[in-house]
Amino acid sequence: MNREEIATLFMQLQDRICNNLEAIDGKSRFIEDKWERDEGGGGRTRIIQQGGIIEKGGVAFSKVHGTVTEAMQKQLGIEGSSFFATGVSIVLHPENPHVPIIHMNVRYFELNTGVYWFGGGIDLTPHFIIDNQAKQFHEGLAAICNKYDISFYPKFKNWADDYFFIPHRNETRGIGGIFFDHLKESSTISKEQLLQFCIELGDNFSVLYQQQVAQGKNKPFNEQQVHWRNLRRGRYVEFNLVNDRGTKFGLVSGGRTESILMSLPANASWEYNYKVEPNSAEENTLNLLKKGKDWLN
Amino acid sequence: MNREEIATLFMQLQDRICNNLEAIDGKSRFIEDKWERDEGGGGRTRIIQQGGIIEKGGVAFSKVHGTVTEAMQKQLGIEGSSFFATGVSIVLHPENPHVPIIHMNVRYFELNTGVYWFGGGIDLTPHFIIDNQAKQFHEGLAAICNKYDISFYPKFKNWADDYFFIPHRNETRGIGGIFFDHLKESSTISKEQLLQFCIELGDNFSVLYQQQVAQGKNKPFNEQQVHWRNLRRGRYVEFNLVNDRGTKFGLVSGGRTESILMSLPANASWEYNYKVEPNSAEENTLNLLKKGKDWLN
Repeated sequence: MNREEIATLFMQLQDRICNNLEAIDGKSRFIEDKWERDEGGGGRTRIIQQGGIIEKGGVAFSKVHGTVTEAMQKQLGIEGSSFFATGVSIVLHPENPHVPIIHMNVRYFELNTGVYWFGGGIDLTPHFIIDNQAKQFHEGLAAICNKYDISFYPKFKNWADDYFFIPHRNETRGIGGIFFDHLKESSTISKEQLLQFCIELGDNFSVLYQQQVAQGKNKPFNEQQVHWRNLRRGRYVEFNLVNDRGTKFGLVSGGRTESILMSLPANASWEYNYKVEPNSAEENTLNLLKKGKDWLN
Repeated sequence: MNREEIATLFMQLQDRICNNLEAIDGKSRFIEDKWERDEGGGGRTRIIQQGGIIEKGGVAFSKVHGTVTEAMQKQLGIEGSSFFATGVSIVLHPENPHVPIIHMNVRYFELNTGVYWFGGGIDLTPHFIIDNQAKQFHEGLAAICNKYDISFYPKFKNWADDYFFIPHRNETRGIGGIFFDHLKESSTISKEQLLQFCIELGDNFSVLYQQQVAQGKNKPFNEQQVHWRNLRRGRYVEFNLVNDRGTKFGLVSGGRTESILMSLPANASWEYNYKVEPNSAEENTLNLLKKGKDWLN
Protein backbone atom coordinates (compact mmCIF):
# COMPACT_ATOMS: atom_id res chain seq x y z
CA MET A 1 0.00 0.00 0.00
CA ASN A 2 1.78 3.12 -1.20
CA ARG A 3 1.09 6.79 -0.66
CA GLU A 4 -0.79 7.20 -3.94
CA GLU A 5 -3.20 4.45 -2.94
CA ILE A 6 -3.74 6.09 0.44
CA ALA A 7 -4.43 9.43 -1.24
CA THR A 8 -6.94 7.78 -3.58
CA LEU A 9 -8.75 6.17 -0.66
CA PHE A 10 -8.90 9.55 1.11
CA MET A 11 -10.24 11.18 -2.04
CA GLN A 12 -12.96 8.53 -2.34
CA LEU A 13 -13.73 9.08 1.36
CA GLN A 14 -14.29 12.77 0.61
CA ASP A 15 -16.80 11.77 -2.11
CA ARG A 16 -18.77 9.50 0.23
CA ILE A 17 -18.81 12.07 3.04
CA CYS A 18 -20.02 14.84 0.74
CA ASN A 19 -22.81 12.61 -0.58
CA ASN A 20 -23.87 11.75 2.96
CA LEU A 21 -23.77 15.36 4.10
CA GLU A 22 -25.85 16.52 1.15
CA ALA A 23 -28.44 13.91 2.12
CA ILE A 24 -28.36 15.10 5.75
CA ASP A 25 -28.58 18.74 4.73
CA GLY A 26 -31.41 18.13 2.30
CA LYS A 27 -31.10 21.48 0.54
CA SER A 28 -27.66 22.76 -0.51
CA ARG A 29 -25.03 21.04 -2.61
CA PHE A 30 -21.26 21.27 -2.31
CA ILE A 31 -19.41 23.45 -4.75
CA GLU A 32 -15.89 22.35 -5.58
CA ASP A 33 -12.68 24.28 -6.09
CA LYS A 34 -9.79 22.30 -7.50
CA TRP A 35 -6.46 23.91 -6.78
CA GLU A 36 -2.81 23.22 -7.45
CA ARG A 37 0.16 24.06 -5.35
CA ASP A 38 3.22 25.60 -7.00
CA GLU A 39 5.52 23.36 -4.97
CA GLY A 40 3.65 20.20 -5.92
CA GLY A 41 0.25 18.58 -5.56
CA GLY A 42 -3.10 20.17 -4.93
CA GLY A 43 -6.55 19.52 -3.64
CA ARG A 44 -10.31 19.64 -3.92
CA THR A 45 -11.94 22.08 -1.51
CA ARG A 46 -15.69 21.55 -1.29
CA ILE A 47 -17.91 24.11 0.35
CA ILE A 48 -21.56 24.01 1.33
CA GLN A 49 -23.33 27.26 2.25
CA GLN A 50 -26.82 28.34 3.29
CA GLY A 51 -28.07 24.78 3.50
CA GLY A 52 -31.11 23.37 5.23
CA ILE A 53 -28.93 22.34 8.20
CA ILE A 54 -25.43 23.58 7.45
CA GLU A 55 -25.02 27.33 7.25
CA LYS A 56 -21.37 27.07 6.23
CA GLY A 57 -19.10 24.08 5.99
CA GLY A 58 -16.26 22.57 4.07
CA VAL A 59 -14.90 19.12 3.24
CA ALA A 60 -11.39 19.40 1.90
CA PHE A 61 -9.14 16.80 0.33
CA SER A 62 -5.51 17.55 -0.34
CA LYS A 63 -2.46 15.69 -1.57
CA VAL A 64 0.71 17.74 -1.51
CA HIS A 65 4.41 17.12 -1.65
CA GLY A 66 7.45 19.32 -1.47
CA THR A 67 10.62 20.31 0.28
CA VAL A 68 10.80 20.16 4.06
CA THR A 69 11.29 23.80 5.03
CA GLU A 70 12.98 25.10 8.14
CA ALA A 71 9.56 26.14 9.50
CA MET A 72 8.34 22.54 9.10
CA GLN A 73 11.43 21.10 10.73
CA LYS A 74 10.92 23.43 13.67
CA GLN A 75 7.17 23.12 14.07
CA LEU A 76 6.81 19.42 13.27
CA GLY A 77 10.16 18.32 14.69
CA ILE A 78 10.91 16.24 11.61
CA GLU A 79 14.02 15.24 9.73
CA GLY A 80 14.15 14.65 6.00
CA SER A 81 14.41 16.72 2.86
CA SER A 82 11.05 16.09 1.20
CA PHE A 83 7.55 15.21 2.36
CA PHE A 84 4.24 13.89 1.11
CA ALA A 85 0.97 14.65 2.90
CA THR A 86 -2.61 13.75 2.13
CA GLY A 87 -5.79 14.07 4.12
CA VAL A 88 -9.42 15.00 4.46
CA SER A 89 -10.57 17.74 6.81
CA ILE A 90 -14.03 18.95 7.66
CA VAL A 91 -15.68 21.72 9.66
CA LEU A 92 -19.46 22.23 9.62
CA HIS A 93 -21.29 25.18 11.18
CA PRO A 94 -25.03 24.49 11.40
CA GLU A 95 -27.63 27.23 11.48
CA ASN A 96 -29.77 25.89 14.33
CA PRO A 97 -28.07 26.58 17.69
CA HIS A 98 -29.36 23.19 18.88
CA VAL A 99 -27.21 21.40 16.31
CA PRO A 100 -23.50 21.19 17.22
CA ILE A 101 -20.50 22.34 15.19
CA ILE A 102 -18.39 19.36 14.14
CA HIS A 103 -14.83 18.88 12.95
CA MET A 104 -13.00 15.90 11.52
CA ASN A 105 -9.56 15.37 10.06
CA VAL A 106 -7.66 12.29 8.91
CA ARG A 107 -4.23 12.60 7.39
CA TYR A 108 -1.18 10.67 6.27
CA PHE A 109 2.32 12.10 6.29
CA GLU A 110 5.44 10.55 4.79
CA LEU A 111 9.06 11.65 4.57
CA ASN A 112 11.66 10.70 1.97
CA THR A 113 13.47 8.89 4.80
CA GLY A 114 10.65 6.32 4.81
CA VAL A 115 9.23 7.57 8.10
CA TYR A 116 5.42 7.91 7.96
CA TRP A 117 2.51 8.42 10.29
CA PHE A 118 -1.24 8.86 10.44
CA GLY A 119 -3.00 11.58 12.38
CA GLY A 120 -6.49 12.90 12.83
CA GLY A 121 -9.41 13.46 15.10
CA ILE A 122 -13.09 14.18 15.44
CA ASP A 123 -14.50 16.66 17.94
CA LEU A 124 -17.92 18.10 18.63
CA THR A 125 -18.76 21.65 19.72
CA PRO A 126 -22.38 21.92 20.83
CA HIS A 127 -23.65 25.45 21.41
CA PHE A 128 -25.79 23.85 24.12
CA ILE A 129 -24.34 20.72 25.68
CA ILE A 130 -26.83 17.91 26.33
CA ASP A 131 -25.43 15.09 28.43
CA ASN A 132 -26.94 12.10 26.66
CA GLN A 133 -26.05 13.43 23.22
CA ALA A 134 -22.46 13.97 24.36
CA LYS A 135 -22.44 10.42 25.73
CA GLN A 136 -23.79 9.04 22.46
CA PHE A 137 -21.07 10.83 20.47
CA HIS A 138 -18.27 9.55 22.68
CA GLU A 139 -19.74 6.03 22.71
CA GLY A 140 -19.71 6.05 18.93
CA LEU A 141 -16.06 7.09 18.85
CA ALA A 142 -15.09 4.58 21.54
CA ALA A 143 -16.80 1.76 19.62
CA ILE A 144 -14.72 2.46 16.50
CA CYS A 145 -11.49 2.88 18.48
CA ASN A 146 -12.06 -0.36 20.40
CA LYS A 147 -12.19 -2.37 17.18
CA TYR A 148 -8.55 -1.47 16.59
CA ASP A 149 -6.91 -1.07 19.98
CA ILE A 150 -8.50 -0.97 23.39
CA SER A 151 -6.01 1.73 24.44
CA PHE A 152 -6.97 4.10 21.60
CA TYR A 153 -10.14 5.71 22.97
CA PRO A 154 -8.89 6.65 26.48
CA LYS A 155 -5.59 7.87 25.07
CA PHE A 156 -7.05 9.78 22.12
CA LYS A 157 -9.89 11.21 24.23
CA ASN A 158 -7.39 12.78 26.64
CA TRP A 159 -5.32 13.99 23.70
CA ALA A 160 -8.42 15.75 22.32
CA ASP A 161 -9.07 17.38 25.72
CA ASP A 162 -5.56 18.79 25.65
CA TYR A 163 -5.57 19.77 21.99
CA PHE A 164 -9.03 21.35 21.69
CA PHE A 165 -8.41 23.69 24.60
CA ILE A 166 -8.42 27.51 24.67
CA PRO A 167 -5.90 28.52 27.35
CA HIS A 168 -6.77 32.24 27.37
CA ARG A 169 -10.42 31.31 28.07
CA ASN A 170 -9.62 28.32 30.29
CA GLU A 171 -12.27 26.42 28.32
CA THR A 172 -12.28 23.37 26.09
CA ARG A 173 -13.58 24.11 22.59
CA GLY A 174 -16.51 21.75 23.07
CA ILE A 175 -17.05 18.26 24.44
CA GLY A 176 -13.91 16.99 22.70
CA GLY A 177 -13.78 13.63 21.01
CA ILE A 178 -10.56 12.00 19.85
CA PHE A 179 -7.27 13.35 18.57
CA PHE A 180 -4.21 11.36 17.51
CA ASP A 181 -0.94 11.96 15.74
CA HIS A 182 2.28 10.15 14.83
CA LEU A 183 0.44 6.83 14.65
CA LYS A 184 2.77 4.18 13.22
CA GLU A 185 2.61 0.43 12.78
CA SER A 186 3.70 -1.62 15.77
CA SER A 187 3.76 -5.23 16.92
CA THR A 188 0.02 -5.01 17.57
CA ILE A 189 -1.24 -3.04 14.55
CA SER A 190 -0.23 -2.86 10.89
CA LYS A 191 -0.07 0.13 8.58
CA GLU A 192 -3.09 -1.26 6.68
CA GLN A 193 -5.09 -1.42 9.90
CA LEU A 194 -4.18 2.16 10.80
CA LEU A 195 -5.34 3.32 7.38
CA GLN A 196 -8.51 1.30 7.85
CA PHE A 197 -9.02 3.00 11.24
CA CYS A 198 -8.83 6.43 9.56
CA ILE A 199 -11.21 5.38 6.77
CA GLU A 200 -13.68 3.88 9.24
CA LEU A 201 -13.62 7.06 11.31
CA GLY A 202 -14.33 8.98 8.15
CA ASP A 203 -17.20 6.73 7.16
CA ASN A 204 -18.71 6.95 10.62
CA PHE A 205 -18.38 10.71 10.74
CA SER A 206 -21.67 11.26 8.86
CA VAL A 207 -23.41 8.65 11.02
CA LEU A 208 -22.31 10.33 14.24
CA TYR A 209 -23.24 13.77 12.96
CA GLN A 210 -26.59 12.58 11.64
CA GLN A 211 -27.46 11.42 15.20
CA GLN A 212 -26.68 14.88 16.54
CA VAL A 213 -28.51 16.68 13.72
CA ALA A 214 -31.63 14.55 14.14
CA GLN A 215 -31.96 15.48 17.80
CA GLY A 216 -31.50 19.22 17.30
CA LYS A 217 -32.73 20.24 13.88
CA ASN A 218 -36.43 20.50 14.68
CA LYS A 219 -36.00 22.39 17.94
CA PRO A 220 -37.21 25.97 17.63
CA PHE A 221 -34.77 28.73 18.53
CA ASN A 222 -34.98 32.41 19.34
CA GLU A 223 -32.78 35.48 18.83
CA GLN A 224 -31.14 35.13 22.20
CA GLN A 225 -30.05 31.57 21.33
CA VAL A 226 -28.71 32.76 17.98
CA HIS A 227 -26.71 35.41 19.84
CA TRP A 228 -25.29 32.73 22.14
CA ARG A 229 -24.50 30.53 19.11
CA ASN A 230 -22.60 33.46 17.58
CA LEU A 231 -20.65 34.06 20.80
CA ARG A 232 -19.69 30.37 20.84
CA ARG A 233 -18.66 30.72 17.20
CA GLY A 234 -16.45 33.58 18.36
CA ARG A 235 -14.66 31.15 20.66
CA TYR A 236 -14.33 28.73 17.75
CA VAL A 237 -12.66 31.50 15.73
CA GLU A 238 -10.35 32.26 18.65
CA PHE A 239 -9.32 28.62 18.94
CA ASN A 240 -8.72 28.22 15.23
CA LEU A 241 -6.75 31.44 14.77
CA VAL A 242 -4.86 31.56 18.08
CA ASN A 243 -4.46 27.97 19.22
CA ASP A 244 -4.92 25.47 16.40
CA ARG A 245 -1.47 24.30 15.36
CA GLY A 246 -2.73 23.02 12.03
CA THR A 247 -4.25 26.37 11.06
CA LYS A 248 -1.24 28.36 12.22
CA PHE A 249 1.16 26.06 10.43
CA GLY A 250 -0.90 26.23 7.25
CA LEU A 251 -1.01 30.01 7.27
CA VAL A 252 2.68 30.61 7.97
CA SER A 253 3.85 27.90 5.58
CA GLY A 254 2.03 29.43 2.64
CA GLY A 255 -0.93 27.05 2.40
CA ARG A 256 -4.04 28.00 0.44
CA THR A 257 -5.69 30.53 2.77
CA GLU A 258 -9.27 30.02 1.57
CA SER A 259 -9.00 26.26 2.13
CA ILE A 260 -7.42 26.63 5.56
CA LEU A 261 -9.93 29.24 6.73
CA MET A 262 -12.98 27.37 5.40
CA SER A 263 -13.21 26.34 9.08
CA LEU A 264 -14.47 29.81 10.03
CA PRO A 265 -18.22 30.36 10.50
CA ALA A 266 -20.42 32.59 8.33
CA ASN A 267 -20.52 34.97 11.26
CA ALA A 268 -19.35 35.24 14.85
CA SER A 269 -19.93 37.65 17.71
CA TRP A 270 -18.03 39.10 20.61
CA GLU A 271 -19.46 40.92 23.60
CA TYR A 272 -17.24 42.40 26.27
CA ASN A 273 -17.22 40.33 29.47
CA TYR A 274 -20.43 38.47 28.59
CA LYS A 275 -22.05 36.85 31.63
CA VAL A 276 -24.47 33.94 31.41
CA GLU A 277 -27.66 33.81 33.47
CA PRO A 278 -27.39 31.69 36.62
CA ASN A 279 -28.88 28.20 36.18
CA SER A 280 -29.33 28.69 32.43
CA ALA A 281 -28.57 26.21 29.64
CA GLU A 282 -25.73 28.57 28.71
CA GLU A 283 -24.23 28.37 32.20
CA ASN A 284 -24.60 24.60 32.17
CA THR A 285 -22.71 24.47 28.87
CA LEU A 286 -19.87 26.66 30.16
CA ASN A 287 -19.56 24.51 33.28
CA LEU A 288 -19.06 21.42 31.11
CA LEU A 289 -16.25 22.89 28.99
CA LYS A 290 -13.57 21.28 31.14
CA LYS A 291 -10.78 18.84 30.47
CA GLY A 292 -11.00 15.32 31.88
CA LYS A 293 -14.77 14.86 31.91
CA ASP A 294 -15.72 11.22 31.42
CA TRP A 295 -18.61 11.36 28.96
CA LEU A 296 -19.14 7.60 28.83
CA ASN A 297 -20.25 7.18 32.44
CA MET B 1 9.89 62.62 35.21
CA ASN B 2 9.51 59.13 36.65
CA ARG B 3 7.39 56.18 35.61
CA GLU B 4 4.58 56.99 38.02
CA GLU B 5 4.23 60.45 36.54
CA ILE B 6 4.13 58.98 33.05
CA ALA B 7 1.41 56.52 34.12
CA THR B 8 -0.61 59.36 35.63
CA LEU B 9 -0.36 61.38 32.42
CA PHE B 10 -1.52 58.33 30.41
CA MET B 11 -4.42 57.79 32.81
CA GLN B 12 -5.50 61.41 32.41
CA LEU B 13 -5.17 60.99 28.63
CA GLN B 14 -7.60 58.08 28.84
CA ASP B 15 -10.08 60.35 30.66
CA ARG B 16 -9.87 63.07 28.02
CA ILE B 17 -10.18 60.62 25.13
CA CYS B 18 -13.25 58.96 26.66
CA ASN B 19 -14.90 62.34 27.18
CA ASN B 20 -14.21 63.29 23.57
CA LEU B 21 -15.46 59.98 22.23
CA GLU B 22 -18.68 60.20 24.22
CA ALA B 23 -19.25 63.62 22.68
CA ILE B 24 -18.56 62.24 19.20
CA ASP B 25 -20.79 59.23 19.79
CA GLY B 26 -23.62 61.32 21.19
CA LYS B 27 -25.52 58.37 22.68
CA SER B 28 -23.66 55.71 24.68
CA ARG B 29 -21.36 56.16 27.66
CA PHE B 30 -18.29 54.15 28.58
CA ILE B 31 -18.61 51.57 31.30
CA GLU B 32 -15.48 50.95 33.33
CA ASP B 33 -13.92 47.77 34.70
CA LYS B 34 -11.09 48.29 37.15
CA TRP B 35 -8.88 45.22 37.42
CA GLU B 36 -5.78 44.21 39.31
CA ARG B 37 -3.06 41.87 38.24
CA ASP B 38 -1.83 39.22 40.67
CA GLU B 39 1.78 39.93 39.73
CA GLY B 40 1.41 43.68 40.29
CA GLY B 41 -0.47 46.65 38.94
CA GLY B 42 -3.76 46.77 37.10
CA GLY B 43 -5.85 48.87 34.82
CA ARG B 44 -9.08 50.57 33.85
CA THR B 45 -10.78 48.98 30.83
CA ARG B 46 -13.52 51.20 29.42
CA ILE B 47 -16.02 49.85 26.93
CA ILE B 48 -18.64 51.58 24.83
CA GLN B 49 -21.33 49.49 23.11
CA GLN B 50 -24.34 50.09 20.88
CA GLY B 51 -23.62 53.79 20.60
CA GLY B 52 -24.89 56.32 18.09
CA ILE B 53 -21.64 55.94 16.09
CA ILE B 54 -19.61 53.27 17.84
CA GLU B 55 -21.11 49.80 17.84
CA LYS B 56 -18.32 48.39 20.03
CA GLY B 57 -15.14 49.99 21.26
CA GLY B 58 -12.71 50.14 24.11
CA VAL B 59 -10.26 52.58 25.63
CA ALA B 60 -7.94 50.79 28.02
CA PHE B 61 -5.41 52.14 30.46
CA SER B 62 -2.99 49.82 32.22
CA LYS B 63 -0.03 50.12 34.53
CA VAL B 64 1.63 46.83 35.35
CA HIS B 65 4.90 45.63 36.77
CA GLY B 66 6.41 42.25 37.43
CA THR B 67 9.11 39.74 36.72
CA VAL B 68 10.57 39.46 33.25
CA THR B 69 9.56 35.97 32.16
CA GLU B 70 11.35 33.77 29.66
CA ALA B 71 8.52 34.36 27.18
CA MET B 72 9.08 38.13 27.47
CA GLN B 73 12.83 37.79 27.07
CA LYS B 74 12.27 35.75 23.95
CA GLN B 75 9.47 37.77 22.37
CA LEU B 76 10.66 41.24 23.33
CA GLY B 77 14.38 40.51 23.17
CA ILE B 78 14.98 42.23 26.49
CA GLU B 79 17.38 41.80 29.37
CA GLY B 80 16.56 42.54 32.98
CA SER B 81 14.76 40.88 35.85
CA SER B 82 11.76 43.16 36.37
CA PHE B 83 9.70 45.48 34.18
CA PHE B 84 7.20 48.31 34.37
CA ALA B 85 4.74 49.03 31.57
CA THR B 86 1.98 51.59 31.18
CA GLY B 87 -0.11 52.64 28.23
CA VAL B 88 -3.41 53.51 26.63
CA SER B 89 -4.88 51.45 23.81
CA ILE B 90 -8.00 51.94 21.77
CA VAL B 91 -10.01 50.13 19.11
CA LEU B 92 -13.34 51.45 17.87
CA HIS B 93 -15.74 49.60 15.56
CA PRO B 94 -18.40 51.94 14.18
CA GLU B 95 -21.81 50.75 13.03
CA ASN B 96 -21.99 52.69 9.76
CA PRO B 97 -19.82 50.99 7.08
CA HIS B 98 -18.89 54.48 5.83
CA VAL B 99 -17.12 55.27 9.11
CA PRO B 100 -13.68 53.62 9.49
CA ILE B 101 -12.43 51.36 12.27
CA ILE B 102 -9.65 53.09 14.21
CA HIS B 103 -6.89 51.93 16.53
CA MET B 104 -4.45 53.80 18.74
CA ASN B 105 -1.87 52.76 21.29
CA VAL B 106 0.76 54.66 23.27
CA ARG B 107 2.93 52.90 25.79
CA TYR B 108 5.96 53.26 28.02
CA PHE B 109 8.16 50.33 29.02
CA GLU B 110 10.95 50.35 31.62
CA LEU B 111 13.33 47.70 32.92
CA ASN B 112 15.05 47.53 36.28
CA THR B 113 18.31 48.04 34.37
CA GLY B 114 17.22 51.61 33.66
CA VAL B 115 16.54 50.91 29.99
CA TYR B 116 13.23 52.42 28.83
CA TRP B 117 11.35 53.12 25.63
CA PHE B 118 8.15 54.52 24.21
CA GLY B 119 6.05 52.79 21.58
CA GLY B 120 2.72 53.24 19.90
CA GLY B 121 0.81 53.95 16.77
CA ILE B 122 -2.43 55.00 15.15
CA ASP B 123 -3.94 53.30 12.14
CA LEU B 124 -7.19 53.59 10.24
CA THR B 125 -9.20 50.76 8.65
CA PRO B 126 -11.92 52.15 6.39
CA HIS B 127 -14.45 49.60 5.13
CA PHE B 128 -14.55 51.77 2.01
CA ILE B 129 -11.37 53.71 1.30
CA ILE B 130 -11.87 57.28 0.11
CA ASP B 131 -8.70 58.93 -1.17
CA ASN B 132 -9.12 62.41 0.24
CA GLN B 133 -10.14 61.12 3.67
CA ALA B 134 -7.08 58.85 3.73
CA LYS B 135 -4.94 61.83 2.74
CA GLN B 136 -6.47 63.96 5.50
CA PHE B 137 -5.74 61.27 8.09
CA HIS B 138 -2.11 60.90 7.04
CA GLU B 139 -1.65 64.67 6.84
CA GLY B 140 -2.87 64.96 10.41
CA LEU B 141 -0.39 62.34 11.59
CA ALA B 142 2.46 63.86 9.58
CA ALA B 143 1.76 67.31 11.07
CA ILE B 144 2.10 65.96 14.62
CA CYS B 145 5.21 63.91 13.78
CA ASN B 146 6.89 66.86 12.06
CA LYS B 147 6.69 68.96 15.22
CA TYR B 148 9.05 66.51 16.90
CA ASP B 149 11.32 65.10 14.21
CA ILE B 150 11.09 65.45 10.48
CA SER B 151 12.21 61.82 10.09
CA PHE B 152 9.35 60.45 12.23
CA TYR B 153 6.45 60.42 9.77
CA PRO B 154 8.18 58.68 6.81
CA LYS B 155 9.85 56.19 9.12
CA PHE B 156 6.79 55.45 11.24
CA LYS B 157 4.49 55.36 8.20
CA ASN B 158 6.58 52.58 6.62
CA TRP B 159 6.72 50.80 9.95
CA ALA B 160 2.91 50.83 10.08
CA ASP B 161 2.72 49.45 6.54
CA ASP B 162 4.90 46.54 7.64
CA TYR B 163 3.22 45.99 11.00
CA PHE B 164 -0.44 46.26 10.01
CA PHE B 165 -0.10 43.67 7.27
CA ILE B 166 -1.89 40.32 6.88
CA PRO B 167 0.58 38.00 5.09
CA HIS B 168 -1.89 35.16 4.47
CA ARG B 169 -4.20 37.64 2.69
CA ASN B 170 -1.41 39.70 1.13
CA GLU B 171 -3.33 42.79 2.28
CA THR B 172 -2.62 45.66 4.63
CA ARG B 173 -5.18 45.91 7.44
CA GLY B 174 -6.30 49.32 6.23
CA ILE B 175 -4.66 52.54 5.07
CA GLY B 176 -2.06 52.31 7.83
CA GLY B 177 -0.89 55.35 9.75
CA ILE B 178 2.11 55.36 12.03
CA PHE B 179 3.76 52.71 14.20
CA PHE B 180 6.84 53.11 16.36
CA ASP B 181 8.66 51.20 19.06
CA HIS B 182 11.86 51.34 21.13
CA LEU B 183 11.84 55.12 20.98
CA LYS B 184 14.56 56.48 23.31
CA GLU B 185 16.05 59.88 24.00
CA SER B 186 18.86 60.93 21.71
CA SER B 187 21.02 63.94 20.94
CA THR B 188 18.05 65.47 19.10
CA ILE B 189 15.10 64.60 21.35
CA SER B 190 14.65 64.27 25.11
CA LYS B 191 12.60 61.76 27.10
CA GLU B 192 10.18 64.58 27.99
CA GLN B 193 9.67 65.38 24.32
CA LEU B 194 9.02 61.74 23.49
CA LEU B 195 6.39 61.57 26.21
CA GLN B 196 4.92 64.81 24.90
CA PHE B 197 4.81 63.26 21.40
CA CYS B 198 2.79 60.32 22.75
CA ILE B 199 0.42 62.58 24.67
CA GLU B 200 -0.07 64.86 21.68
CA LEU B 201 -0.86 61.87 19.47
CA GLY B 202 -3.40 60.77 22.06
CA ASP B 203 -4.99 64.19 22.24
CA ASN B 204 -5.20 64.42 18.47
CA PHE B 205 -6.67 60.95 18.14
CA SER B 206 -10.22 62.17 18.77
CA VAL B 207 -9.73 65.11 16.42
CA LEU B 208 -8.55 62.84 13.59
CA TYR B 209 -11.37 60.38 14.22
CA GLN B 210 -13.97 63.12 14.43
CA GLN B 211 -12.96 64.23 10.92
CA GLN B 212 -13.55 60.71 9.63
CA VAL B 213 -16.80 60.25 11.52
CA ALA B 214 -18.21 63.55 10.29
CA GLN B 215 -17.72 62.58 6.65
CA GLY B 216 -19.29 59.13 6.95
CA LYS B 217 -21.89 59.09 9.69
CA ASN B 218 -24.78 60.54 7.71
CA LYS B 219 -24.26 58.42 4.62
CA PRO B 220 -27.03 55.87 4.20
CA PHE B 221 -26.05 52.20 3.92
CA ASN B 222 -27.69 49.01 2.78
CA GLU B 223 -27.51 45.33 3.73
CA GLN B 224 -24.89 44.57 1.11
CA GLN B 225 -22.62 47.25 2.60
CA VAL B 226 -23.17 45.86 6.09
CA HIS B 227 -22.16 42.43 4.78
CA TRP B 228 -19.00 43.92 3.30
CA ARG B 229 -18.30 45.74 6.59
CA ASN B 230 -18.61 42.40 8.40
CA LEU B 231 -16.26 40.68 5.96
CA ARG B 232 -13.72 43.45 6.56
CA ARG B 233 -14.23 42.99 10.29
CA GLY B 234 -13.39 39.33 9.67
CA ARG B 235 -10.03 40.42 8.30
CA TYR B 236 -9.57 42.64 11.36
CA VAL B 237 -10.17 39.59 13.57
CA GLU B 238 -7.69 37.57 11.52
CA PHE B 239 -5.02 40.26 11.88
CA ASN B 240 -5.57 40.64 15.62
CA LEU B 241 -5.61 36.93 16.42
CA VAL B 242 -3.05 35.65 13.90
CA ASN B 243 -0.63 38.52 13.29
CA ASP B 244 -0.77 41.18 16.00
CA ARG B 245 2.28 40.67 18.20
CA GLY B 246 0.76 42.66 21.05
CA THR B 247 -2.39 40.52 21.17
CA LYS B 248 -0.49 37.26 20.89
CA PHE B 249 1.98 38.30 23.56
CA GLY B 250 -0.82 39.39 25.88
CA LEU B 251 -2.70 36.11 25.49
CA VAL B 252 0.26 33.79 25.99
CA SER B 253 1.71 35.82 28.86
CA GLY B 254 -1.47 35.58 30.90
CA GLY B 255 -2.82 39.10 30.36
CA ARG B 256 -6.47 39.90 31.07
CA THR B 257 -8.24 38.26 28.13
CA GLU B 258 -11.32 40.49 28.13
CA SER B 259 -9.14 43.62 28.02
CA ILE B 260 -6.90 42.25 25.28
CA LEU B 261 -9.82 41.05 23.13
CA MET B 262 -11.86 44.23 23.54
CA SER B 263 -10.36 44.95 20.10
CA LEU B 264 -12.71 42.42 18.47
CA PRO B 265 -15.89 43.65 16.77
CA ALA B 266 -19.46 42.92 17.91
CA ASN B 267 -19.70 40.62 14.91
CA ALA B 268 -17.70 39.54 11.89
CA SER B 269 -18.38 37.45 8.81
CA TRP B 270 -16.56 35.02 6.57
CA GLU B 271 -17.60 33.86 3.14
CA TYR B 272 -15.61 31.28 1.22
CA ASN B 273 -13.58 32.81 -1.60
CA TYR B 274 -15.61 36.03 -1.68
CA LYS B 275 -15.18 37.98 -4.92
CA VAL B 276 -15.86 41.69 -5.26
CA GLU B 277 -17.73 43.13 -8.24
CA PRO B 278 -15.48 44.60 -10.94
CA ASN B 279 -15.20 48.41 -10.71
CA SER B 280 -17.03 48.52 -7.37
CA ALA B 281 -16.14 50.54 -4.28
CA GLU B 282 -15.24 47.23 -2.68
CA GLU B 283 -12.78 46.39 -5.46
CA ASN B 284 -11.30 49.88 -5.24
CA THR B 285 -10.77 49.37 -1.49
CA LEU B 286 -9.05 46.00 -1.97
CA ASN B 287 -6.77 47.48 -4.62
CA LEU B 288 -5.60 50.14 -2.15
CA LEU B 289 -4.69 47.71 0.64
CA LYS B 290 -1.04 47.69 -0.37
CA LYS B 291 2.18 48.56 1.38
CA GLY B 292 4.11 51.62 0.29
CA LYS B 293 1.26 53.80 -0.94
CA ASP B 294 2.07 57.49 -0.48
CA TRP B 295 -1.18 58.92 0.87
CA LEU B 296 0.11 62.49 1.12
CA ASN B 297 0.58 63.08 -2.60
